[in-house]
Amino acid sequence: MGIHKFFTSLNDLERIFRAPGRFKFEEHNVAAHSWKVSQYAMFFGTLEELNGATVNWKSLYEKTINHDFAEVFIGDIKTPVKHASVELKQMLAHVEEKMMEKFIREEIPPEFQEIFLERMKEGKDETLEGRLLEFSDKLDQFYESFAELKRGNTDKEFIIMYQQALEKLLKMPLDVSVRYFKEEILRDVISEETHINIAALTNEVLNKPDR
Amino acid sequence: MGIHKFFTSLNDLERIFRAPGRFKFEEHNVAAHSWKVSQYAMFFGTLEELNGATVNWKSLYEKTINHDFAEVFIGDIKTPVKHASVELKQMLAHVEEKMMEKFIREEIPPEFQEIFLERMKEGKDETLEGRLLEFSDKLDQFYESFAELKRGNTDKEFIIMYQQALEKLLKMPLDVSVRYFKEEILRDVISEETHINIAALTNEVLNKPDR
Amino acid sequence: MGIHKFFTSLNDLERIFRAPGRFKFEEHNVAAHSWKVSQYAMFFGTLEELNGATVNWKSLYEKTINHDFAEVFIGDIKTPVKHASVELKQMLAHVEEKMMEKFIREEIPPEFQEIFLERMKEGKDETLEGRLLEFSDKLDQFYESFAELKRGNTDKEFIIMYQQALEKLLKMPLDVSVRYFKEEILRDVISEETHINIAALTNEVLNKPDR
Amino acid sequence: MGIHKFFTSLNDLERIFRAPGRFKFEEHNVAAHSWKVSQYAMFFGTLEELNGATVNWKSLYEKTINHDFAEVFIGDIKTPVKHASVELKQMLAHVEEKMMEKFIREEIPPEFQEIFLERMKEGKDETLEGRLLEFSDKLDQFYESFAELKRGNTDKEFIIMYQQALEKLLKMPLDVSVRYFKEEILRDVISEETHINIAALTNEVLNKPDR
Amino acid sequence: MGIHKFFTSLNDLERIFRAPGRFKFEEHNVAAHSWKVSQYAMFFGTLEELNGATVNWKSLYEKTINHDFAEVFIGDIKTPVKHASVELKQMLAHVEEKMMEKFIREEIPPEFQEIFLERMKEGKDETLEGRLLEFSDKLDQFYESFAELKRGNTDKEFIIMYQQALEKLLKMPLDVSVRYFKEEILRDVISEETHINIAALTNEVLNKPDR
Amino acid sequence: MGIHKFFTSLNDLERIFRAPGRFKFEEHNVAAHSWKVSQYAMFFGTLEELNGATVNWKSLYEKTINHDFAEVFIGDIKTPVKHASVELKQMLAHVEEKMMEKFIREEIPPEFQEIFLERMKEGKDETLEGRLLEFSDKLDQFYESFAELKRGNTDKEFIIMYQQALEKLLKMPLDVSVRYFKEEILRDVISEETHINIAALTNEVLNKPDR
Repeated sequence: MGIHKFFTSLNDLERIFRAPGRFKFEEHNVAAHSWKVSQYAMFFGTLEELNGATVNWKSLYEKTINHDFAEVFIGDIKTPVKHASVELKQMLAHVEEKMMEKFIREEIPPEFQEIFLERMKEGKDETLEGRLLEFSDKLDQFYESFAELKRGNTDKEFIIMYQQALEKLLKMPLDVSVRYFKEEILRDVISEETHINIAALTNEVLNKPDR
Repeated sequence: MGIHKFFTSLNDLERIFRAPGRFKFEEHNVAAHSWKVSQYAMFFGTLEELNGATVNWKSLYEKTINHDFAEVFIGDIKTPVKHASVELKQMLAHVEEKMMEKFIREEIPPEFQEIFLERMKEGKDETLEGRLLEFSDKLDQFYESFAELKRGNTDKEFIIMYQQALEKLLKMPLDVSVRYFKEEILRDVISEETHINIAALTNEVLNKPDR
Repeated sequence: MGIHKFFTSLNDLERIFRAPGRFKFEEHNVAAHSWKVSQYAMFFGTLEELNGATVNWKSLYEKTINHDFAEVFIGDIKTPVKHASVELKQMLAHVEEKMMEKFIREEIPPEFQEIFLERMKEGKDETLEGRLLEFSDKLDQFYESFAELKRGNTDKEFIIMYQQALEKLLKMPLDVSVRYFKEEILRDVISEETHINIAALTNEVLNKPDR
Repeated sequence: MGIHKFFTSLNDLERIFRAPGRFKFEEHNVAAHSWKVSQYAMFFGTLEELNGATVNWKSLYEKTINHDFAEVFIGDIKTPVKHASVELKQMLAHVEEKMMEKFIREEIPPEFQEIFLERMKEGKDETLEGRLLEFSDKLDQFYESFAELKRGNTDKEFIIMYQQALEKLLKMPLDVSVRYFKEEILRDVISEETHINIAALTNEVLNKPDR
Repeated sequence: MGIHKFFTSLNDLERIFRAPGRFKFEEHNVAAHSWKVSQYAMFFGTLEELNGATVNWKSLYEKTINHDFAEVFIGDIKTPVKHASVELKQMLAHVEEKMMEKFIREEIPPEFQEIFLERMKEGKDETLEGRLLEFSDKLDQFYESFAELKRGNTDKEFIIMYQQALEKLLKMPLDVSVRYFKEEILRDVISEETHINIAALTNEVLNKPDR
Repeated sequence: MGIHKFFTSLNDLERIFRAPGRFKFEEHNVAAHSWKVSQYAMFFGTLEELNGATVNWKSLYEKTINHDFAEVFIGDIKTPVKHASVELKQMLAHVEEKMMEKFIREEIPPEFQEIFLERMKEGKDETLEGRLLEFSDKLDQFYESFAELKRGNTDKEFIIMYQQALEKLLKMPLDVSVRYFKEEILRDVISEETHINIAALTNEVLNKPDR
């Protein structure tokens, strides 16, 4: 088969849900998540550009819309499993890569194969676009957990998810974006009326000694 | 408020469903739809480029990820309403534009307002990117109705949706993409085992006298 | 086709959901909403009658069960769109009317067409029954938003919905019903244990200077 | 408490689903069902009236919108249980009546109690309105099972439900309505394109020796 | 038919939901409930055994996995109905028994009928296993209502459900299990951060004069 | 914390769905699946016993109700990933084991730890009970895919799932059970009216040369 198979596989990502097994007030599928990540990247790419950076927009958008496509093959593996050991993590990454390659070799028409192999490989590299992808991906975890806490979800996992995302966002090597997030976005986040004390959870991270 | 309000509004598009009121085996939200449209555009943009066209990738991706953002304000208005009269269509388009503008003026930080106004305006223009957006948007209607018919949905609306999308795709001023769709994709589509006779529905359109 | 088409279209209203795009703990379809409106009308019609009014019950019940049937054709258009301009509102009302008329002319057997045209036209007129319909319709908006706030929904839209419904209910030209609502129902509403401070939101409206 | 308790209990009927435990492509709640029944009654009441009958419209509409309210207290008891023995059926009817009475005595304001007791009692009596209620209620079972069969539901229960509803409809002591149903509606039903052979299932009932 | 019919009927219990008609943040089907009950029984059976009791494990597990199978036939009858009168309760139990018997005689291969009749009969008897079943069944009601209260469900029914389950658990003739529940489990339950004041609700029951 | 944490974790398995990402007419959670597996085991254990085998019932039931508990930690990893390489499979099994062990050491009260470690370890061993577990687990895959095919799901994955389950069931070293399945159950399966030609798919496997 040809590209038709690839196109129908896109629909599968609408049925893979994030953070499976946790109680949530609202589910998010991987297709919608990918779209939100591309929207965050559009904003922060613009911000970086306005502050003097040179953005490869084609690369940035392709990284964001493709970054979770491999979940079609491997499904959602829980974070603790992935981080159980460096060895396992590498092995899973390797399997994922092989499955993607196999799919491309079998389903994508030959003249597009090299382009797809390039586009679908792991996008979170050291380039500005790779860092913007990681920042945007983390920002969606931040917003997903924020929405649950705001609605009153008391399951501890979302507090952990929220604080971990926050911590990683603040440490990203993207000075302009991180500052904007800290000064503009967190201010608005903290001022929202919420069930859970979001301000306290946020300040706990902001005031950590190593900050 | 600032960009935080814009970011939380993205979540609203995960709750606006396409083709409301029709019986479907599977629902599709506008966020996931936008992502699929950007994926189709990635492929057909590449195809056009391989055949000599010059693609403005930044514009193409921004058109696809932003093209339905306005549904946040106006909701899903049924197609027959939109097409009831030229006058009404223009008036609705005008209202949509005004609401988008108002939102941008109120929520988006001043230094980003011009960029957002530019990005969020109607993208289906005469440029190559505008045509690729329209082609990709129509292709998702094609695939959504195809999936329902394939699973046995007998409601007439999906036959109409399928044939109308097909007809519009074949008439798009994008020679290379249309030919590829007709020769490669339709061949695979027709060969799938389906409840409804997709091949017959497809040939009915292909063999219309005005083709 | 005949009345069979009309009967199957009733099912479509079970798939059109109220307040689309907002986060809710519970969805409400237009069919169930219509039923609840007819129940409120039964009560307030009885109340008005006990207080000396003459109620045309046939008209009252037909107004309530039919008042949202047109959503089958036009879908759910967001309130802000409808109120964007007087001109647009009139144009949409006109389109709705034309679609209803077209449907009746095409699907309803000739001997029933005049009766259906009469029954399906806009019911919120100056008659007692028209006012009871409007009161009951608004009361369901009141109860839908109340239920969300009670369960802890912090999205501002429901506070606005609740206060707007309350304000409109209090201003309806239906003295007996409004007094009963204010003295009996609001007292019970305020005394419920809720996440959001419903009593405060309610008193804010009750104590507005123009009351 | 007062009528507020009654109004909030209406919402409960949106969470009681018909034919629980069976696999269905689409669920129907009791609130939406009650509305559809009132719509069928509106049509057949009109038909009877056009043919010379005198319809008590207030009674007809109240019977239809109230006929399943008691499910708030007793839930959905499966049909085979209800029909296990005449004795059990009577006892369940008695319990239902007692619970309704208790609810009205406790929650409905005194001045409305007699009216509610009258309205909420079993409506399927020998009057024209009682027979129209029974006909309309059965018609919704007919349409619910028809929709499942049409969409390809192969579970035998829906074939049984469809044929039983059909059989009962044809036997109802409502000559004009039954004739209209048989001559007009069944003709359209049979001509629809469906997965299951609806025409055969229908003719099997129509051609039974005792017809 | 043979055992195939029994096996496919298991799937029906995945579509019968507990506490129908109540607003819940999370639904629970009878199949999953039965599994959780068997897990509680595994723990408390072990606890009793460690404290000197002799457990018939085969009987205990069969009681737990089979205890709600009859809901396939009778559906979910609301608790107040069941307890309306001793007479009705007995009659319903009798009908349930007859339906089960009929099913076994018709669907289960003859050589297994006696075994199935034995296994499917009411399991909550005076034996240790019967009491452990009742304790475990009640414990699931306790945990289901606890989870709703914890997430902020303000509907009074869950407070009642929670306190009734607690009260019954504390009165069960299973000294070791009750003590463990009271000293170990309740301590952890009370210390959870919850929307509703669970500690207060719990102490209200613990401090009742008759304890 | 103590056993309370274990009891609340049971609820998580109600939110982990089988075969994630595939289009299905009906979802199945891991809790309900575990219950169905225990029911199949009850039947086939009885059958083996009637034919002279000695069944350790305590072990059999504990194996079935516990066999997927580890999915709480690792989530649902797609089958192709697990089988990508022997090395990866072993590594994943190792991680799963370590996580289970860690959970038991941290959450289960000391006096129960050894018992839980024993019960929660991989149950599909060479014993009669281990083989009955594997047979029952595979039988649920058989029934899940059968139900989808019967309802008209045309996605190839379910044909593959059905035929693979069938093939494995027929090869299990459980002579009596396999014969019963082949002679009694398959006969009934094949005779059902289904959208997809189940008989043909079944015979294809039955008539493979190596049978």
